[in-house]
Amino acid sequence: MNLPLRNIFLKLKQEKLDGLIVSLPANISYLTNFISRDAYFLVSKKRNVYFTDSRYTEEARLGLFGAATVKKFNGSVFKLIADTLQELKLKRVGFEERYLPFAEHKKIREELAKKIELIPTHSLIEGLRKIKSELELEKIAKAAEITILALKFIRKFIRPGKKEIEVAAEIERFIRYNDALGTAFEIIVAAGANASFPHHRTSERRIKNHEPVLIDVGVDYLGYKSDLTRVFFLGKITSIFKRTYDIVLAAQARAIAAIRPGVAINKIDRLARQYIAENGYGAFFGHGLGHGIGLEVHEEPHLCAKNNQRLAKGMVFTVEPAIYLPRRFGIRIEDMVLVTREGAKVLSDDLDKSI
Amino acid sequence: MNLPLRNIFLKLKQEKLDGLIVSLPANISYLTNFISRDAYFLVSKKRNVYFTDSRYTEEARLGLFGAATVKKFNGSVFKLIADTLQELKLKRVGFEERYLPFAEHKKIREELAKKIELIPTHSLIEGLRKIKSELELEKIAKAAEITILALKFIRKFIRPGKKEIEVAAEIERFIRYNDALGTAFEIIVAAGANASFPHHRTSERRIKNHEPVLIDVGVDYLGYKSDLTRVFFLGKITSIFKRTYDIVLAAQARAIAAIRPGVAINKIDRLARQYIAENGYGAFFGHGLGHGIGLEVHEEPHLCAKNNQRLAKGMVFTVEPAIYLPRRFGIRIEDMVLVTREGAKVLSDDLDKSI
Repeated sequence: MNLPLRNIFLKLKQEKLDGLIVSLPANISYLTNFISRDAYFLVSKKRNVYFTDSRYTEEARLGLFGAATVKKFNGSVFKLIADTLQELKLKRVGFEERYLPFAEHKKIREELAKKIELIPTHSLIEGLRKIKSELELEKIAKAAEITILALKFIRKFIRPGKKEIEVAAEIERFIRYNDALGTAFEIIVAAGANASFPHHRTSERRIKNHEPVLIDVGVDYLGYKSDLTRVFFLGKITSIFKRTYDIVLAAQARAIAAIRPGVAINKIDRLARQYIAENGYGAFFGHGLGHGIGLEVHEEPHLCAKNNQRLAKGMVFTVEPAIYLPRRFGIRIEDMVLVTREGAKVLSDDLDKSI
Repeated sequence: MNLPLRNIFLKLKQEKLDGLIVSLPANISYLTNFISRDAYFLVSKKRNVYFTDSRYTEEARLGLFGAATVKKFNGSVFKLIADTLQELKLKRVGFEERYLPFAEHKKIREELAKKIELIPTHSLIEGLRKIKSELELEKIAKAAEITILALKFIRKFIRPGKKEIEVAAEIERFIRYNDALGTAFEIIVAAGANASFPHHRTSERRIKNHEPVLIDVGVDYLGYKSDLTRVFFLGKITSIFKRTYDIVLAAQARAIAAIRPGVAINKIDRLARQYIAENGYGAFFGHGLGHGIGLEVHEEPHLCAKNNQRLAKGMVFTVEPAIYLPRRFGIRIEDMVLVTREGAKVLSDDLDKSI
């Protein structure tokens, strides 16, 4: 049995559950080491069962290597899940309350004998996923490496006259020629004032000279994600650009310097946020400082003012302070950081931030 | 007020609801004409409210043109939704039971005064979305057109030695240079035996000579999707390929010929399925015959054995019979069809199917 499965069985024991219905694809992938899609996964001491439809049955049978029974559904997957719980004589079965839609819970409930309890659970697997294994770190490092190559490549490619969407097209093509399965999310290419939208939708707008271009890109490498942002300047850099950029950069450096096991997560967020505020731009940095990354682009831990959990060795997250000046421009600098025994290792250190 | 909003108000009246919490992005886009992400939308006679976080507030304010009040959430969106329902003095408020997670329903419920009822609803908006407007049809046609161009382009590009993922990279690049926002789903490029998986994950495998290559691609044009599949043969076509291909093609032609308003949807599915079965391959076509397409790649109506609804003018869906022979190869031919007053218009008619 693999380590994630062993750990989740411990969790189930603590919660007095004899089974767990897993519906978040990343959680299923984590437990099975198989890139899951359109499936439900039942973990139980008696048997693990993977429910999917005819489109994915074959690949699941091959990919799961016997780690779970694959059941194909044709009619209602909810009836099949309920029947399976009964067949295995489970009594208290957890489900992921954040990922199971109201109607699906209702359908499983309706198909079940009264005496079987369905218990809402929260972050059982996500909690485990916060600390990455060596194998996971290798995949994340590789995802970061491909992204770094892509950003280095595109820095030379961008020039006035190119459309944002064309720049995205070249990045997308590049990463697929360099071992990525695909992008981790829609690539953001935001020129000039478009960069003032934190998540601009890449458009047909052409890049002009003397403006910044913000590029936010992540890839999927064997299921693991990366997420990096750089701002490139074309032509002559104005002093307001330069000043804002330096503030964001210094805010990021402050946050990263404080990272080590045991430090409260909201302290890291605060360090960057305060620095930006002290320099007069507090109102222009609205989102959290960063987010965990692994099987999902956004996962635990979330670096924000409310998170008073502590950093631990093996966590990987982004650090991405920003300043967005509406109708003018936006700066975001995003790196990926691993918490080590002594401090932090910036996985994207190799990617230049000078302008 | 736009037509979708007017229609949904009629629906609400029928259901005796004075508000509806919409959480499916495609449904929000349908009602607002704005490409929505990470948001909740409240429809009510008193006011429409769009809830999103700081990343999207600016674009939402611009994009919604005053059609809704934009509320930014920082803490809990569920509390903000509950507060808004109370502020507007709504009494019976629907939610989309298939798209609202169990935990989110619980949180909104907890924040609400007891006297406000939360009512599960099902397909209120999806039902309206089945029939496309002229404006929607224009966007879908454009999405199909870009996809046709991409498949024509890639047919010339593929050759032995190229990796599946490289073929996907070229398609992805092509569509972005040709007015698409991006792909509608992960492009499937499946060479040889890989095509026997209905939804093969595009891999590093190189294409060989004398084998089929299945390509399934869709694009996003202003929020509207396309979805087309072709199988190309490299080198010499074996007789078993040819025979299977002809069966799939004839099955598709039979189904399409029967399409017109008033016909039961499962009859269309049955026509194709029976033909494949009569020719000895019934066991190798497991999925439905097709699916509606529009703001989502998969939407109503679903063409399958259980759907006894009737076709109506303005529906758009895929027709995609297939034969998958495990460890050998797979054939799927997928076109997009519009139901017209007299019959069917194949939106992808321009794309050759001869081999």
